[in-house]
Amino acid sequence: MLMSEVESQPNQQNKENSPTRDAIYIGKKPLMAYVTSTLIQLANQPSVTIKARGLSIGRAVDVSQIILKRMENAGYAIGDIIIGSETVQAEDGRTRNVSTIEIQVKRNT
Amino acid sequence: MLMSEVESQPNQQNKENSPTRDAIYIGKKPLMAYVTSTLIQLANQPSVTIKARGLSIGRAVDVSQIILKRMENAGYAIGDIIIGSETVQAEDGRTRNVSTIEIQVKRNT
Repeated sequence: MLMSEVESQPNQQNKENSPTRDAIYIGKKPLMAYVTSTLIQLANQPSVTIKARGLSIGRAVDVSQIILKRMENAGYAIGDIIIGSETVQAEDGRTRNVSTIEIQVKRNT
Repeated sequence: MLMSEVESQPNQQNKENSPTRDAIYIGKKPLMAYVTSTLIQLANQPSVTIKARGLSIGRAVDVSQIILKRMENAGYAIGDIIIGSETVQAEDGRTRNVSTIEIQVKRNT
């Protein structure tokens, strides 16, 4: 059973790359760059969370599916999926909401 | 706890609109059209699943978040979220994979 969380106050500090980060943020690089980053993290940790917001949300799902399909024999599975929204400030000073997704990818073993 | 399902053989028949459909398919209409459709279904049924694929995946998350935020007092919650992929045939005859998402929205009561 999964419940969504509405993240109105995202913790920006989590976006810093720590030595043992367990999150991959999806941006504008080619998809395979994120697939590779995720797989490298999964070699060291039992689970990694793929995070994206706005237009990158579909790409986050793509990354998770590429990992599942191409690495079928390696035993990866999708864990919790969390959707939410964040308030961002536009350049004109107005605020608007942007949707977010977090997809946990974990080793089966 | 939520597990993803890889839908390589989607059941196309489910896409027909039955009289008591419990799924809303996100396409190219304005977001609020899907918000309205979902809320109408939720008036009759305890839960509705918002479905999308490819570039519409982010819009499906948007629809779910608009319902949650604007209807805070009405008691809606996100239920299971399923991601997967479907094989589609391109016009040139080649097949490619497209990611999919299903977001369950349900009444709290």
